[in-house]
Parts: sequence; C-alpha cells; structure tokens
Amino acid sequence: MIESQIVPYRDHDTLLNGFLAWDTALSGRRPGVLVVHGGAGLDDHARGRALRFVESGFVAFACDMYGEGVAGNRVIQRITELRGNPAALNQRTQAGLDILSRHPSVDGRLAAVGYCFGGMTVLELARSGAQLAGVVSVHGALETAQPAEPAGIHTKILVCHGALDPHVPMTHVASFSQEMVRAGADWQLIIYGGAMHGFTHENATGNQPGVAYHAPSDLRSSLAIQMFLREVF
Amino acid sequence: MIESQIVPYRDHDTLLNGFLAWDTALSGRRPGVLVVHGGAGLDDHARGRALRFVESGFVAFACDMYGEGVAGNRVIQRITELRGNPAALNQRTQAGLDILSRHPSVDGRLAAVGYCFGGMTVLELARSGAQLAGVVSVHGALETAQPAEPAGIHTKILVCHGALDPHVPMTHVASFSQEMVRAGADWQLIIYGGAMHGFTHENATGNQPGVAYHAPSDLRSSLAIQMFLREVF
Repeated sequence: MIESQIVPYRDHDTLLNGFLAWDTALSGRRPGVLVVHGGAGLDDHARGRALRFVESGFVAFACDMYGEGVAGNRVIQRITELRGNPAALNQRTQAGLDILSRHPSVDGRLAAVGYCFGGMTVLELARSGAQLAGVVSVHGALETAQPAEPAGIHTKILVCHGALDPHVPMTHVASFSQEMVRAGADWQLIIYGGAMHGFTHENATGNQPGVAYHAPSDLRSSLAIQMFLREVF
Repeated sequence: MIESQIVPYRDHDTLLNGFLAWDTALSGRRPGVLVVHGGAGLDDHARGRALRFVESGFVAFACDMYGEGVAGNRVIQRITELRGNPAALNQRTQAGLDILSRHPSVDGRLAAVGYCFGGMTVLELARSGAQLAGVVSVHGALETAQPAEPAGIHTKILVCHGALDPHVPMTHVASFSQEMVRAGADWQLIIYGGAMHGFTHENATGNQPGVAYHAPSDLRSSLAIQMFLREVF
C-alpha cells in the first residue's frame, strides 16, 4: 500500500512542506527519488509524479522549494531570488535530499527529477558537483550563470526537451551540449518533436503562450526516465 | 530457434544478397524490421543487429544496398551514386522491404532501422512519404538535398545521435529539427553525450578519425529502439 505524509522541514529560516511517499508492501531498502516541482510550486503534478516513482519501487519525496505562504506575486519573486543565487538554490534542494535520505527505507542511492523550474534546479545541483546516481531535467531551462567545470559533474544526466519550447531554443541545446562535453559529463538529451514547454503538465494547455500538454511526449519521457533510473540505480 | 538464410533479390539490374532471420519457435504473424547497413556494407554488425530484432520477437531482414561484388573503391562510388539520387536510393530500400513483407510470418507492419549510411537511407525513405510504422536512424547523416514537405512524412521517426559526431554537428541537428517541425512529423532525437560517429560499431574504434565504439550509448540506444518499436507496433 502506498503511504504518504506531509513533512515539514527547514532550510535555515524558511519553513518548507514536502510530500513523502513510499510503498509499505515492499520490504527492504531501496533508492530514493527527489521530485522538484515546476514554477507553480508543489502541486498535484509534482505529487502525482512522486506517486508514480513509488509505483516503480522507489521512495519519493516531492520537495518544496518556495516555502510556506509563498503564492501569487511572491512566487515570481522567489523564483528570481533562487535562480539568481545558485548556492542558495542548491542548499534548498539539498534540504529536500536530506529528508529523503533519512527515510528508513532509503538505501543511500538518490536521484532527482525536476520539471520546468525543477528541471533547471536539478541541473544546477549537478553543476555544483552533487554526488547523486542521476538527475533528470524535464522541460527545464538549460542556460546557467555558472557552467560546470571540467570533471565537475558527479552524476549521470538526462534531459527531456520539447522541440517547440520557445523558452529553450536550439541555441540553448547547443550551448548545453558544449558545456556538458567540456565538463566530461555522462549525459543524454532527448528532443521530443511536437512538444512545447511544460509538455508533462496535464492542465497546462492554454494557460500561457508556448506551454501545452503533449501526451505522446509525456508518455515517452516517462518511459525514458524509468529506463534511466533502472540504469543508474 | 532462430533460422536465417541469404536471400538473393534484385533492384532492376542489380543483384543483391540480403540476410533474413526469424524465430521458428514463435507462432503467428508479427512485425518485420528492415536493417540497413552502414558504409561498410552488409556485415557482421548489420547481421548481428538483425538477430537482436529477431530475439525481440520480430522478423528481420538485413538488406543489401550495394549489390554483389561491390567492394573496395567501388563502395565509395556506390554510396555517392545512391546519395546523389534519392529516388534510386529509396527504390533500393523498397526492394528490401518487399522481401521482408513477403515473409509468411510478417503481418504487414514494418519498420526500418539504419546505421550510418543506413541511418541516412531510412530518413530519406521517411522523407519520400513511405508508409511505415517507424524508422530509426542511428549515427546517420541528417542533411538532405530534398527536405520533407509539410504533411509529407507518414512514419514515426527516432534519431539516435552522438554528441561528439564530427560528421553531424549541432547545426545539422538544428536544421533537421526545423525540417521535421515544418513537415509536422512525429519525431524524436536523442543526443548521446560521449558518443562519436559509429558508436554502435563494436570494432570501429581507431579505424577512422571521429569514429569510435561507445558501449554506454550502444546500450542506451538499443533500449530506446526497443521501446520505440514497442510503441509503433
């Protein structure tokens, strides 16, 4: 049976509330998957993806990157703060990883999967040299203020990218490729034809220009992520 | 038990010898996979890949694109002839598809998987409007003299590309992406970090500059191809 609970935790002064889920029918310890939400914050999408990872046999923690009471206009402000300060961003992600790794069923192996804002977040974590089994960025930004150093990446990387994403043009894909080659990273990037920004968000279509759900790419990327996690764990 | 035979066939005046393989332990009809060899011609690599598709439950035909007696300097001449004449190239590929589709165990569903020269070949076939379930190009050229027309592609497309392939730089990936978007194709392209040209050719390393076997990308692309074939069939 899948159990879940809201876990309050802290990144210094900021109170965060994450969503932890695991399957009580499984015995033994297993890897943990951190889910990092998109720009809308910890929502049904992030919780739903966490539950899918639990169905695949992992413990999952959908972390909270914004903190209690951050909504409306304050969300953009919080995103801007975190994007502008990679060290603070990585510290906040690490606070989520700490919660996940302390779960008694987690065996020490960890991966992080992020969507949109969370995709950018997990790539920044990788660039910082975090020791994880793998990170997956799904329709996330690929640009960075602090490109990875040679031999500076210590996790496998998978990027799932929509060919029609107006926020991430092919020039960014080319720059990211150069950055990863220079860093000597173990990386893959899948371009999904027909997919715009936010292609895994079931309710995204029509909310913002350039953002739309794309069921075939959601399914294909979900399978690619499963395959990636089977490889890295 | 896997059975195989050399099948002589013709494309007009050209005598060709393909390699047909199927599993006699399976009952019932099933999809067929055409394997299109790389620049070296129908060799152990192409036959080996055909046998893997048989192990996955398909009938496979590794076709012969060059013809009897074409070796040495005549290979480059034959490649140049075929690349310069997409209609002739597609006709020759179609001759192989005809052999495959006539096998009594093939149920009418067909896909084509090509490597290097064969990758270019299957994309040309897709651009010509061929009605297949899917085509897969593995470390093949992405440029073309005859870009696909809008609504002109009638098969799903998967491209497996090495990030370090000096023959297929990121500018070609960008042009291919534009071509596929304009055509409205159902397509995906995976960039494998660390992979040069010919990354699935076990014995390629050291033979030519820019060409090398890359085991992780060979494995990852093989799994991606399996997943793609499960989707399209």
